[in-house]
Amino acid sequence: MRRSIYVAVILSLPFAARSDEGMWTVDNFPSDQVADKYNVNVDEEWLRSAQLSTARLENGCTGSFSSADGLVLTNNHCVWGCIRNLSSDERNLSDEGFVASSREEELQCPGQQISVLLELDNVTDDIVSVTRGLADADANEARKARLTDLESACEDAADGKLRCEAVTLYNGGQYFIYTYERYDDVRLVFAPELDIAAFGGDPDNFNFPRWCLDMSFLRVYEDGKPASTPNYLRWREGGPRDAEPVFIAGHPGATNRLLTTSQLRMLRDDVIPLWLLRYSELRGRMLAWQNSSPEAARIVQQRILGIENGIKVRRNQLKALHDDDMMAIKADEETRLRDAVAADPRLQEAYGDAWELIDGAIEAHRNMYEEHLFIENTAAFNSDLFNYARTIVRGIVERGRPNNERLRAYTDAALPQIEQGLLSARPVNKDYEKLTLGFSLEKMREWLGPDSRYVRQILGKESPESLAARLVDNSHLDDAGYRETLWKGDEKALRESSDPMIQLALAIDPDARALRKSYENTVEAPRSRGEEKIADARFQIYGTDTYPDATFTLRVTYGAVEGWEERGEMLTPFTHTDRLFERATGQRPFSLPASWSRAREDLNPDTPFNFSLTTDITGGNSGSPIVAGDGTLVGLAFDGNIHSIAGGYWFKQSNNRAVGVSTSIILEALDVVYGADHLLDELTVVH
Amino acid sequence: MRRSIYVAVILSLPFAARSDEGMWTVDNFPSDQVADKYNVNVDEEWLRSAQLSTARLENGCTGSFSSADGLVLTNNHCVWGCIRNLSSDERNLSDEGFVASSREEELQCPGQQISVLLELDNVTDDIVSVTRGLADADANEARKARLTDLESACEDAADGKLRCEAVTLYNGGQYFIYTYERYDDVRLVFAPELDIAAFGGDPDNFNFPRWCLDMSFLRVYEDGKPASTPNYLRWREGGPRDAEPVFIAGHPGATNRLLTTSQLRMLRDDVIPLWLLRYSELRGRMLAWQNSSPEAARIVQQRILGIENGIKVRRNQLKALHDDDMMAIKADEETRLRDAVAADPRLQEAYGDAWELIDGAIEAHRNMYEEHLFIENTAAFNSDLFNYARTIVRGIVERGRPNNERLRAYTDAALPQIEQGLLSARPVNKDYEKLTLGFSLEKMREWLGPDSRYVRQILGKESPESLAARLVDNSHLDDAGYRETLWKGDEKALRESSDPMIQLALAIDPDARALRKSYENTVEAPRSRGEEKIADARFQIYGTDTYPDATFTLRVTYGAVEGWEERGEMLTPFTHTDRLFERATGQRPFSLPASWSRAREDLNPDTPFNFSLTTDITGGNSGSPIVAGDGTLVGLAFDGNIHSIAGGYWFKQSNNRAVGVSTSIILEALDVVYGADHLLDELTVVH
Repeated sequence: MRRSIYVAVILSLPFAARSDEGMWTVDNFPSDQVADKYNVNVDEEWLRSAQLSTARLENGCTGSFSSADGLVLTNNHCVWGCIRNLSSDERNLSDEGFVASSREEELQCPGQQISVLLELDNVTDDIVSVTRGLADADANEARKARLTDLESACEDAADGKLRCEAVTLYNGGQYFIYTYERYDDVRLVFAPELDIAAFGGDPDNFNFPRWCLDMSFLRVYEDGKPASTPNYLRWREGGPRDAEPVFIAGHPGATNRLLTTSQLRMLRDDVIPLWLLRYSELRGRMLAWQNSSPEAARIVQQRILGIENGIKVRRNQLKALHDDDMMAIKADEETRLRDAVAADPRLQEAYGDAWELIDGAIEAHRNMYEEHLFIENTAAFNSDLFNYARTIVRGIVERGRPNNERLRAYTDAALPQIEQGLLSARPVNKDYEKLTLGFSLEKMREWLGPDSRYVRQILGKESPESLAARLVDNSHLDDAGYRETLWKGDEKALRESSDPMIQLALAIDPDARALRKSYENTVEAPRSRGEEKIADARFQIYGTDTYPDATFTLRVTYGAVEGWEERGEMLTPFTHTDRLFERATGQRPFSLPASWSRAREDLNPDTPFNFSLTTDITGGNSGSPIVAGDGTLVGLAFDGNIHSIAGGYWFKQSNNRAVGVSTSIILEALDVVYGADHLLDELTVVH
Repeated sequence: MRRSIYVAVILSLPFAARSDEGMWTVDNFPSDQVADKYNVNVDEEWLRSAQLSTARLENGCTGSFSSADGLVLTNNHCVWGCIRNLSSDERNLSDEGFVASSREEELQCPGQQISVLLELDNVTDDIVSVTRGLADADANEARKARLTDLESACEDAADGKLRCEAVTLYNGGQYFIYTYERYDDVRLVFAPELDIAAFGGDPDNFNFPRWCLDMSFLRVYEDGKPASTPNYLRWREGGPRDAEPVFIAGHPGATNRLLTTSQLRMLRDDVIPLWLLRYSELRGRMLAWQNSSPEAARIVQQRILGIENGIKVRRNQLKALHDDDMMAIKADEETRLRDAVAADPRLQEAYGDAWELIDGAIEAHRNMYEEHLFIENTAAFNSDLFNYARTIVRGIVERGRPNNERLRAYTDAALPQIEQGLLSARPVNKDYEKLTLGFSLEKMREWLGPDSRYVRQILGKESPESLAARLVDNSHLDDAGYRETLWKGDEKALRESSDPMIQLALAIDPDARALRKSYENTVEAPRSRGEEKIADARFQIYGTDTYPDATFTLRVTYGAVEGWEERGEMLTPFTHTDRLFERATGQRPFSLPASWSRAREDLNPDTPFNFSLTTDITGGNSGSPIVAGDGTLVGLAFDGNIHSIAGGYWFKQSNNRAVGVSTSIILEALDVVYGADHLLDELTVVH
């Protein structure tokens, strides 16, 4: 047992691949290992096909193409924002579900964007050359400016038709420019009712066995017509088989497996507890507030589930970081790397100070953590209206600067996405805004203290609640037209605006920027330099047969359909429809929609529903296609088991499992429950 | 620096007394050290006088006598329950404050009890002799039965006029029977408005500088007349002086300084995070719910402050336990003790297995922690009505058993206090009950999982909210008369009751008792045995010049009026009235009551208000008298600084400070703000 844990966590050594560990980039996939272990030939063509049939949802998810007409399969929980924006008191798409019976009925999701990765260009040498010899803070700025320039050059070369984004891999060991095709007209095609999509709600979240039809269809449009997407996946009717090798392509969001132990301790001591305390309270406020009206319930229903998901993730992350045995293994691994560096004078000269650089950055970060979080990172301003204000205030200033001198969030490459988010019309509920803004202002006071200069400046003689009410009631930023007017105006017009949220964002901006600058120079710069050095040292000592931490960029993982042992008992990897009905209580989150109750007799009780698999995934992989060795779609990733959460720090083959929806139940539900023959006709189903 | 920390935490060595560390029992006070360091002669007479003028509030606080007529000084926050029970929509004593202008106007606090410690009887040899040679579980039962018998014998010897309670010190190193005079007619005499008593609210809680008039007067009655309390404290008009030696007598609730490092880790990993997550959410629910009506606001106002206090305590406890340097010092200390035991074959034979016993208990506890917490320790049933039901259900069964075979909470010695709590009339707000019960049932499902047998039994097909509503709406346990009828009835009548809360308590009781039994046998028994062994080993190796962890029993601490260094800056130990008015914003929790705004011109801006001191106290000391070397009252303890929270695990002389209200501001406020001449006349004020 001890040995298997040990093998699992020494990520940087080639034999780590004995387990199914690794979120691999498509340019460095361990095809030989997969061939050895699973007898599947994953060649360049296979990977290229997986890449082009997989899509990134810019709100933090993955999808895949299911037809040549732009049909995108993803999770239901990946389109909750869209569903909420399209719902009203008269038409609650979350409760009722949605089936567009023709393309004319498909509804545009405000602000939704979907991207497909086309090319990867390694620019590591370029970046290293522009930062060489510079002091840390200067190197940090030079690196950002160069990445901005490279993005611009890439977009110019494509005549502005493609999107180019800088990507940092191995915490600075590699830099890339990724080129994407981006769709910004995305429409809702199909969504089941929340009660079946998220059956079991928060109690079942991250648990298995499980019965969730967590799927939806979107469609990408170009020039008002369904986009042409020739790279799409065929569906296997019966879903995956027990023990079958399977692959997941997708965009895992973030892991922290390459962090130093001191960085992990900062997560344990500062970052995660503060988040958990804030969001547990917000969860309670929302749960109580939702009883105030049906509209309130509709507005917060999915947001509560989202917060509950975040709480479950972080409390299990904290639990993982309290595992002193695993932390000792991480510390051993770190010691071995440091010893290997110290043993070679050349390496010691180049990389020996990496850990001190990082520890210095941590010390600096701890000293400003709360202030930076609340003021610059806007944890004090939990408000869509404030976010609009901050974006407008910063955007107007930044776009007046040369492209490579701007904040990276406001470069020419980033502006189209900003405008898409800022200018699309979305409903704003002012009572909800007051709830979240009042809450976050109070948390600011709680954590910075009532005598903090920031707190005194922001609150003055007002209470968090009264200030929130005044700001929200008097702001016009809920009006997309007003936002557009400000955005298209100049700085003078902005400063003359009487909108109190704009005025707050303006008033706090100098302090916020000062905190940002201090963070960049004293935290980010030495940390980046230290992380680059550690990454280089790893490459030199262990070679390049490794994978980088997740960065919401395309990765391919492999594994097999498999259960695991829980408290001495083996869990089988499949659930079936029969137990869904047995488990339904009629009370949320264990109630079934009427459509399912009606269809009960017509559904096959033995249809595989959800399943578990050993592939190494994390948040951001939601909606990822699960494909068999031959490239056919057999399932849809939507979750992991409870042990998968520790996967943020290390991968344990013994119990880390992804959880997916079988194509078998999706196909049956489309047919029997929803009568969505037109969608079934659009799919290519194989046996 | 390192050295001073080191000295501070090796609690068991005599030279720990070089700091002001220690919550000392009156029979083992380090008078010589105090004479050496502070030149104050604390002799037996001094201690006896402190003992008899100090009182224990059975709801978890301390008080002291201020006149021969039973006048008790304590904190305002110690009487919030009383104030809430006496308030109504028409008369909000929390907002308005309360001044009884004559004894006839003094209002009885429902269920409040106050005790004075009279005698301490060391029964360690007796207990050791009845448990010697028994297996752990048998020893655990035999110990409890013997303690019950000793309590009974003690009360019989006093003709039932006194209360006798078993006390465990040094985690089992010593056993005592403490004899108390107990008053169960306690009346509210004076309380300032909440806005001045808790000025600064949660933001200022555990902070300093500070401006809180956190005081109240109660009075104990006997036979309908003010009790005679000849042992009372004289007040010093000017309060304490800078650097003056001071003493605090009181009933500190609980510290964990003698725990093993494995026990501390269980607090860090399991106990504290679970508590914080639950109560942060409940805080949010209450904050949102209080907006539903003025009555709701009145009912939860102080409860929210109480929860916020608990959150601040535990988040700083977690922070302390994340201090790996301090934990390493604790581990070193433990290793030294274990090495000393191992070095002596006689000690090794007697005590060598102590740590394995405790670690086994922890392992067993972790495996049942959530189930035991939610089902037996009623975390699933956050409801006054359920608590009544549990008390009635258990009490009726238990009182039918021989006294020394009962659960310890239901012995003859305990029954009067149970009845006082159960049968006194107190308002129950059913909406509030639904809020807290629905919340706690949902947390039960969250932490035990929807498939837990307990969860399935309790919820059936209902949701937490619907079950809570049904139970609360249909229960009559809010009626004290109904409770009395059930309590005075027999088990048959109880089982025939149609009250759904009684039926729930009955239904869950076999499972709850089974969990309790399992906990007692597999957790409590080996832990108690292990802790006893460690305590004995400490006595044998380090001697008896030490103090036990706090157990809500009488302790005396010493120290001096002193500020501390915070981020390189020395804080002075006193605040004064002038800054109170400068800091007031008019918005809660920084608003002042009208009485103070009116009196502003008449108050001396230079009057000392709150002050900090080095004495080692903790929760339960709230309301403790702070006395000078000559025994005069100079202040009233009400809080500690933020660093004092780590005092649960170790004492740092450098920054652990208690915080008190100076008698100077209390006397001036009674005079100038409240015109309470009759109270001033009752006090004995010296200059």
